[in-house]
Amino acid sequence: MKLYGYWRSSAAYRIRIALNLKGIEAEHQSVHLVKNGGEQHGRDYIALNPQHLVPTLVLDDGTALTQSLAILEYLEERGEGMALLPTDALGKAQVRAMCLAIACEIHPLNNLRVLQYLSGDMALDDKVKNDWYHHWIHEGFKALERMLVKHSGRFCFGDTVTLADACLVPQVYNARRFNVPLDNYPNIVRISDYCNSLPAFVAALPENQPDAV
Amino acid sequence: MKLYGYWRSSAAYRIRIALNLKGIEAEHQSVHLVKNGGEQHGRDYIALNPQHLVPTLVLDDGTALTQSLAILEYLEERGEGMALLPTDALGKAQVRAMCLAIACEIHPLNNLRVLQYLSGDMALDDKVKNDWYHHWIHEGFKALERMLVKHSGRFCFGDTVTLADACLVPQVYNARRFNVPLDNYPNIVRISDYCNSLPAFVAALPENQPDAV
Repeated sequence: MKLYGYWRSSAAYRIRIALNLKGIEAEHQSVHLVKNGGEQHGRDYIALNPQHLVPTLVLDDGTALTQSLAILEYLEERGEGMALLPTDALGKAQVRAMCLAIACEIHPLNNLRVLQYLSGDMALDDKVKNDWYHHWIHEGFKALERMLVKHSGRFCFGDTVTLADACLVPQVYNARRFNVPLDNYPNIVRISDYCNSLPAFVAALPENQPDAV
Repeated sequence: MKLYGYWRSSAAYRIRIALNLKGIEAEHQSVHLVKNGGEQHGRDYIALNPQHLVPTLVLDDGTALTQSLAILEYLEERGEGMALLPTDALGKAQVRAMCLAIACEIHPLNNLRVLQYLSGDMALDDKVKNDWYHHWIHEGFKALERMLVKHSGRFCFGDTVTLADACLVPQVYNARRFNVPLDNYPNIVRISDYCNSLPAFVAALPENQPDAV
């Protein structure tokens, strides 16, 4: 398998965490999101991923899978390595809700293409862009913190690592990168810090990728 | 089961379609997203859904499930009525990718809270807000159209209705409501129009809900 990603893409970071936790090998191919106007817009790449986004997972038979949560579910269905979803339908629903609270409600509002649109097409200044970024992190983290009060143990959902942790850690990484104060989110910080003490998460860190600048 | 929704919420609309297709009964409870500053911000409601968003599905034992895609997967796992995901892992991955291409890449950028932030906190005028809305529909639909060229039949994924159709139809409804020209998306329009000829989709239409204005 070949994972097309980028060191700083938090969607690709989610997949790296899951691959590491499951012990699944994949070749990593960097798609530089900034250089030359963004390699994700290149003709060869959009043939794999018409959304012009990373990650894309290309299977050995050439099938290209897109959308990080769909890729995470696919890896789960392969059944290799440790399970990252609970076995019961209700547990799965709660874990998926946490994943989506990040992947639908926070990340799409703050990813590169949106920030580029705010400063490019909309010609907004850095202050407005920064306020925008912080606003959606806070909106999302306020909700997520309440979900964690209800469901978390050492990890987001009880004491077993799940896909929710694979989504949380990259989002916290982004929040810190943009200096969002996290004092009001003790469970988010606690779980993220704990995850970052584990080898699978350390190996997935953006700065530990070969394409890190 | 009780579905907290709103006639015009496209995330709630997805659930209504799936319930209808599966023939699952649920009581519908309207959460008025505009009246009185938005009932989704009410104390009782955020105890069910800390994200201040619809839908929420409350099960008979009181368990509250949030995030429309997690709810759709939960309904799928219950195994009642027709299946809305393919049986093979690759097919599931492609259907989920289409759902997420809508639920992560289009809808969160254009939902009510974002439009309110653009016109409220950011004090942008209607022209800029409208451009924003159209921009993200076009970005998303361009990608989705290419996915449909590859995977669609009568429906988004071959000739069997799936969760992807339950996500597509509400997004097309929104696009039309905001007068987004759809001429460049023949497959999106064709599939959406076909779905809208089927009773399960007709019954789920916003204007056919009791809380429609």
